[in-house]
Amino acid sequence: MKIALIGLGKMGANMARRLCRGGIEVVGFNRSREIVEQLASEEGMIAAGSLAEAVGQLPSPRVVWLMLPSGAPTESTLQELIPLLNEGDVVVEGGNSNYHDTQRRARMLAEHGIGYVDSGTSGGIWGLKEGYCLMVGGDREHVALVEPVLKTLAPAPDRGWAHVGPVGSGHFTKMIHNGIEYGMMQAYAEGFALLRGKEEFSLDMAQITELWRHGSVVRSWLLDLTAEFMQRDQDLESVEPYVADSGEGRWTVVESVDQGVAAPVLSLALQMRFASQDEYGYGNRVLSMMRNAFGGHFVETRDEQS
Amino acid sequence: MKIALIGLGKMGANMARRLCRGGIEVVGFNRSREIVEQLASEEGMIAAGSLAEAVGQLPSPRVVWLMLPSGAPTESTLQELIPLLNEGDVVVEGGNSNYHDTQRRARMLAEHGIGYVDSGTSGGIWGLKEGYCLMVGGDREHVALVEPVLKTLAPAPDRGWAHVGPVGSGHFTKMIHNGIEYGMMQAYAEGFALLRGKEEFSLDMAQITELWRHGSVVRSWLLDLTAEFMQRDQDLESVEPYVADSGEGRWTVVESVDQGVAAPVLSLALQMRFASQDEYGYGNRVLSMMRNAFGGHFVETRDEQS
Repeated sequence: MKIALIGLGKMGANMARRLCRGGIEVVGFNRSREIVEQLASEEGMIAAGSLAEAVGQLPSPRVVWLMLPSGAPTESTLQELIPLLNEGDVVVEGGNSNYHDTQRRARMLAEHGIGYVDSGTSGGIWGLKEGYCLMVGGDREHVALVEPVLKTLAPAPDRGWAHVGPVGSGHFTKMIHNGIEYGMMQAYAEGFALLRGKEEFSLDMAQITELWRHGSVVRSWLLDLTAEFMQRDQDLESVEPYVADSGEGRWTVVESVDQGVAAPVLSLALQMRFASQDEYGYGNRVLSMMRNAFGGHFVETRDEQS
Repeated sequence: MKIALIGLGKMGANMARRLCRGGIEVVGFNRSREIVEQLASEEGMIAAGSLAEAVGQLPSPRVVWLMLPSGAPTESTLQELIPLLNEGDVVVEGGNSNYHDTQRRARMLAEHGIGYVDSGTSGGIWGLKEGYCLMVGGDREHVALVEPVLKTLAPAPDRGWAHVGPVGSGHFTKMIHNGIEYGMMQAYAEGFALLRGKEEFSLDMAQITELWRHGSVVRSWLLDLTAEFMQRDQDLESVEPYVADSGEGRWTVVESVDQGVAAPVLSLALQMRFASQDEYGYGNRVLSMMRNAFGGHFVETRDEQS
């Protein structure tokens, strides 16, 4: 099995490593050359200097795996790829695209007889060692062509990957996966804030996170990661209280609205991230202003607080 | 090591089994005799016909472990126990009491020189096999007395149990644990509702829950349990859409209010359970009525809907 892997960022590079070590021949291309050279020398990856060069080295039918940021980078690379590919070739989109985009792209490639497979990919930087969880959408024959790659990326050939439905359903499933992740993370975060807030008990977060990993109902991989960090720094002074969000949390909430199916906790978990990002706090200023206006309450100013 | 175990309900009975199998001598008492006889014949537990008989069989200093419903049953048993115990004895409260009650009870027993240890216990019916996660509060010397029991109940002598702080802190930590559980469960539930709501993809919940168990960021013990059930019945027709709640979810939200520390997702997860319990839906009737009143919208009646 020989494939092209386009996009060797943090995720893509580790996937290339796992594939090379698993016996898949990988032709790698990335906009910046450095990582290409590194993977070529360290992992025996075949270096390509351009998309055309990468595709040109593949046997027919070709399999090209894209591991690019969603949006413009994926879109423009696909436009560049189309004239390089033939009927029967398959493009796999392994990034975090919105499934509506995936469905549109699949229709676009289908006009050229090119297959499109979407693979929602979970596992982060741990995937190299433990394997990736792959949620795959697409036509049966296209997925079949990619199967050896999926089996190598997954934790084991028979688990951690699945063909969940038609094209788009892989990214859809990954989107919901990430929505759930937002809710779970927020639940843990609030719980730890309450544990720490109970000053009279002087609870040890490192001890409790480690304790909960064994036999408790809230044990999970997220808790394993949390416990490991808490051992090093449970005051989290090194971490900013600003929580970024990416597309999939937002898309999950939009999906809830589109379906008319309630997802209040997933929505609120996203909103709490927005609140954490809001340094100016205009809404809170309004509240404080109104509170003063109708109740004669004292409005706290930044200077008086400090 | 020989202890009395008072309360042999679902949790208590399995804990008795694990202790007997782990080499701890257990004197068991329960209001209804049946389970006492059963554990005596099956596990070699020493049967007691009364609290006094159970306590009377213990060497000094005595350790009495209560595994009773929180509230009145625990309170009245404690009142009955006090005259039976001597200075230096220790009572362990393994149920789900509110930590404020625990702190009050500890003060009450301290007046008699009796120690009080609270052990928040997680693991449900799986604890027998996998061991219980024990969050223990109390004075160092009291906890030390109980240590062999904790090491036998836990998944292993060196993990899954911890002395987290002063008396009350064990139940406090268990309360927050359960609050987190509410949030995690709600996050999964909403995600699965959205997966199922996307009818065009006809997603297989059994396949996806199983898939996510391997390599994904949302893997957890709760997901393991969910995957197992989904294999049998993913339509969940056998399950009522009514979600009960117990004290600890509510107390977590009260704690958030007491501390003034935000726990919006844990609070909302509890509120969603209340909403599921509300068969009459008075609030929704009000909304529908108001919507009609100001917008001239049609008010749907039960008859017209069906």
